[in-house]
Amino acid sequence: MTTRLKGAVIGCGFFAQNHLHGWAEFDDVEIVAVCDLDDAKAKAAAEIFGIARVYTSAQALFETEVLDFVDIPTTMEMHEPLAGLAFAHGVPVILQKPFAPDLDACKRIVAAAEAANVTLMIHEDFRFQNLFRKVRDIVDSGELGRLTFGRLSWRTGINVYANQPYLVHVKRFIIMDVGVHLLDLARFLFGEANSVFCRTQQIKTGIAGEDAAIVLLGHDNGATSILDFSYATKRDPDPFPQTLGEIEGTDGTLIIGAGGTLTLHANGATRTIAVPHDCRGWTSEPWTQIQDSVVHTQRHFIDSLRRGIEPATSGRDSLATYALLEAAYLSAASGALIHPDRFPREPA
Amino acid sequence: MTTRLKGAVIGCGFFAQNHLHGWAEFDDVEIVAVCDLDDAKAKAAAEIFGIARVYTSAQALFETEVLDFVDIPTTMEMHEPLAGLAFAHGVPVILQKPFAPDLDACKRIVAAAEAANVTLMIHEDFRFQNLFRKVRDIVDSGELGRLTFGRLSWRTGINVYANQPYLVHVKRFIIMDVGVHLLDLARFLFGEANSVFCRTQQIKTGIAGEDAAIVLLGHDNGATSILDFSYATKRDPDPFPQTLGEIEGTDGTLIIGAGGTLTLHANGATRTIAVPHDCRGWTSEPWTQIQDSVVHTQRHFIDSLRRGIEPATSGRDSLATYALLEAAYLSAASGALIHPDRFPREPA
Repeated sequence: MTTRLKGAVIGCGFFAQNHLHGWAEFDDVEIVAVCDLDDAKAKAAAEIFGIARVYTSAQALFETEVLDFVDIPTTMEMHEPLAGLAFAHGVPVILQKPFAPDLDACKRIVAAAEAANVTLMIHEDFRFQNLFRKVRDIVDSGELGRLTFGRLSWRTGINVYANQPYLVHVKRFIIMDVGVHLLDLARFLFGEANSVFCRTQQIKTGIAGEDAAIVLLGHDNGATSILDFSYATKRDPDPFPQTLGEIEGTDGTLIIGAGGTLTLHANGATRTIAVPHDCRGWTSEPWTQIQDSVVHTQRHFIDSLRRGIEPATSGRDSLATYALLEAAYLSAASGALIHPDRFPREPA
Repeated sequence: MTTRLKGAVIGCGFFAQNHLHGWAEFDDVEIVAVCDLDDAKAKAAAEIFGIARVYTSAQALFETEVLDFVDIPTTMEMHEPLAGLAFAHGVPVILQKPFAPDLDACKRIVAAAEAANVTLMIHEDFRFQNLFRKVRDIVDSGELGRLTFGRLSWRTGINVYANQPYLVHVKRFIIMDVGVHLLDLARFLFGEANSVFCRTQQIKTGIAGEDAAIVLLGHDNGATSILDFSYATKRDPDPFPQTLGEIEGTDGTLIIGAGGTLTLHANGATRTIAVPHDCRGWTSEPWTQIQDSVVHTQRHFIDSLRRGIEPATSGRDSLATYALLEAAYLSAASGALIHPDRFPREPA
């Protein structure tokens, strides 16, 4: 039998519960410790998930435990110091999105990981959704021909402020929270982008940041994509947390509909493809596809560690996503078309 | 009984057939002459529609006939000289879209109409579709609240080059052909725009202009709209010539679906509104909604003439639409956000 990898989870908040549920599914992984500044949260997680040891200090965690990896599902402001601690102890890291508050911080974290020669992956789960794995397969099959147009739309009126009240005060709000998922998906599906135009709106009153945005990307392969997303949308049924959209190529069109239904028109024929959720005991609607994707993301991280390869959403790869994010904010502020930073795509 | 207005139609080509069918419905209008450089086309139209006189020279037409108006459904390159002739004879004009090859030409035509003190209306028919009259009623009702977001989408793979072969050679292609309809609709539904960003693509090979484009508008009321349109889209069913889309406000969302179906979610309730076509003997799918709108557009022109008021899509009003078009081409060429020319909205 494969040796079980020993991991720890730092941060036991709202979304971390999905991470803890996910790790509990792995035969080849053991979460040996949890850590949270809030002792009660850490203890509750340890009790629910049968985890041996509890820490309120990450410093103490790393000094005490022998770890094969650490999962850091905390708010992004803590990512740089916590990842730095992990790197200092030679421990591979899977870091929750958003990566860091700005691109410069992302670059510093990547540089620190590379200096320590340890694996860093960003927990970017949208591209690990069953739906978008299937969409990517269809794109790769060539049935659509050369890609020309894509639209990814994510519009909801769900009360995100209830589970994550700090979002009211966040100055970089929806692009950082949701837009980054769509930017990563756009790279995953349509390839790298070389131009970014963005327009933001603040629709809800009493918040610090933007709660709606439209991003227009020009891709290296000539395709154009539109990403539109909003937390101020009143729809029924509310599609949360589904990404809807459409993809066109020279030979056909793929519609990404609600309920995990793809409609593919190519080569003169149309077919509907239902992409089901996994069957997990702990998932529940409307979160199911996100919860499933957390486990797929974790699986990719563990497999990458075991095989000694760079994860698809490594820190280094994610610099390209966050360069688009930075470009989107810069475009929204300046009204200019921005050409994002480019990073080498090959292993350094 | 109301005096019948005597009109002439100059240009008897592909789309002009719809104009001729439309005029034939009017009890209070008589088309007394048709004119086309191609004698056979003019004669065929006269025969089919029982029109008394045929001309191959517009000069001769205006020198001979006593006209209350002239309808000019020719290609845009002929609009300036033909409208000029009409103005010189004091004859009101309804001019087919696109208005003119560029904004400067539009301005010259408007100036000439104003100098001659005659009515000039652009035959902009999309806003006269039953569907968009209803959409505008819903917007005006306030049910959606303050408008925040709009998307108008027009994507098809229909072979436009078959009926209008000259389109292969047109350098300003789809924005001029279809985009201008969506720009006018965007003004009609979301209000005036103060910023334009545009990205164009040439997808089909062997054509001179752009056959796909995305335009992002910032409106004076704070709303953002996306207009996306393509002649290189393979869908089934092909939605041609329908405009699909969505409109969001602070209180709800309106989905503009296929088949003239609106879905309105507002005030916690959702209702579906079917907007039927008119029942005309001469219309046929897929053109029905366009053909209906031609008659509504003509009706508005005649009513404006009779009441002595400025038509909604007067030449002067249309300068604002063509300023957006000019801004879109400029943005696509330069990669810059363009602030379009502003025109006084009040009567001069």
